[in-house]
Amino acid sequence: MKNPTEPQHTAEQRLHDLKITLPPAQSPFGAYVETVQTGNLLFLTGMLPVVGRELKFVGRVGGELTAEDGRKAAYAAALTSLAVVKEHLGSLDRVTRIVRLGVFIATSGDFREHPKVADGASELLESVFGKDKTSTRIVLGMASLPLGAPIELELIFEVAP
Amino acid sequence: MKNPTEPQHTAEQRLHDLKITLPPAQSPFGAYVETVQTGNLLFLTGMLPVVGRELKFVGRVGGELTAEDGRKAAYAAALTSLAVVKEHLGSLDRVTRIVRLGVFIATSGDFREHPKVADGASELLESVFGKDKTSTRIVLGMASLPLGAPIELELIFEVAP
Amino acid sequence: MKNPTEPQHTAEQRLHDLKITLPPAQSPFGAYVETVQTGNLLFLTGMLPVVGRELKFVGRVGGELTAEDGRKAAYAAALTSLAVVKEHLGSLDRVTRIVRLGVFIATSGDFREHPKVADGASELLESVFGKDKTSTRIVLGMASLPLGAPIELELIFEVAP
Repeated sequence: MKNPTEPQHTAEQRLHDLKITLPPAQSPFGAYVETVQTGNLLFLTGMLPVVGRELKFVGRVGGELTAEDGRKAAYAAALTSLAVVKEHLGSLDRVTRIVRLGVFIATSGDFREHPKVADGASELLESVFGKDKTSTRIVLGMASLPLGAPIELELIFEVAP
Repeated sequence: MKNPTEPQHTAEQRLHDLKITLPPAQSPFGAYVETVQTGNLLFLTGMLPVVGRELKFVGRVGGELTAEDGRKAAYAAALTSLAVVKEHLGSLDRVTRIVRLGVFIATSGDFREHPKVADGASELLESVFGKDKTSTRIVLGMASLPLGAPIELELIFEVAP
Repeated sequence: MKNPTEPQHTAEQRLHDLKITLPPAQSPFGAYVETVQTGNLLFLTGMLPVVGRELKFVGRVGGELTAEDGRKAAYAAALTSLAVVKEHLGSLDRVTRIVRLGVFIATSGDFREHPKVADGASELLESVFGKDKTSTRIVLGMASLPLGAPIELELIFEVAP
């Protein structure tokens, strides 16, 4: 029986084992591009919980949306990120490390459960890339996000030459 | 007739063709420096829409300021960034890629037109450096910014050795 | 008499001269790690003003907390950062440059004294690493931060191979 967390499994194999289907890659809403690679660092544009150009979640966490909604939106944005990385690199297996994950959450009032929301993105990335490629993390509560999104992700990857 | 977007044009030539005059470079408001280069990456301090030490715009976008004001403030902060890069590198032509542009916007209420505001910075950078050097972008709505500024920019450049 | 800012002093010597005792290194609140090194860049997870897993400050600057409280919280988070760097590198003397310091401040209302708060972190880092290793800085006012913290720090260091 296969264990998706065993080290010999690659990110592409885990994606298959976990029966995860990637959405279309996010496309720009302005004068910028989705990825820039410099040396072995791959920077991504801020990733929203979109399918194509349509937001799947709108509102503030702790306001219109619960922490659980926020967690699902973080998962959706992380899924979009995987699609963008795959489009840029051809294969997720070229990722050697997730350097940084930033989780920016539009929040209302005295919301404090940011780590729970952010784990929606972290756990997906860890299940696909494995514990040995796990990132640092910066989690912040924002006043607002583009188009009314509840979540935006920052991602920097280290990639094989 | 000259076309400022033709590939043989350099950033310095485009700046000249577009008749853009750079303001003085921003100077620090505390115990930090405006630029750090590590390898071929150049990191900038958060850039505000200042001339010298004086803010040209104060307030929140969606509150005291309109999206169009925010767009002009983003343009002003991008112009200051060019001045800082030129002071550090000697010539803008040493920039080989804009790796990341972060546009942080002080917002009120339910403001959602972040991409329109951020384009004020993106479009200036693209007109000077050309489409082939265009950056990734992270756009966020903040509760407040230093000194009451409506805009702060994050910039990471790739530079020739 | 020793002068802790003379160039021959190393970060470890200055830490000793300044009689600074490091707290325990922060440990993760979720599915991430505290540090990732890629090439000669060391990225840290967002640093909170914690001792162990307990926040030493809670609230918003300009609301429940004054700018002076915020400054102390920024100092506390910077101290935690030093502990994390030391745990990762073995010695602070392996730091060749602070590339970027981000100071994210949970703020209320029309707070504008962000630079004063951020200096609580910048001044500690400068007193330990020396002026020649001083960072760029990004300072932002947030709607909220994880667990109700008033301060979160972003840090990227350049380290010797």
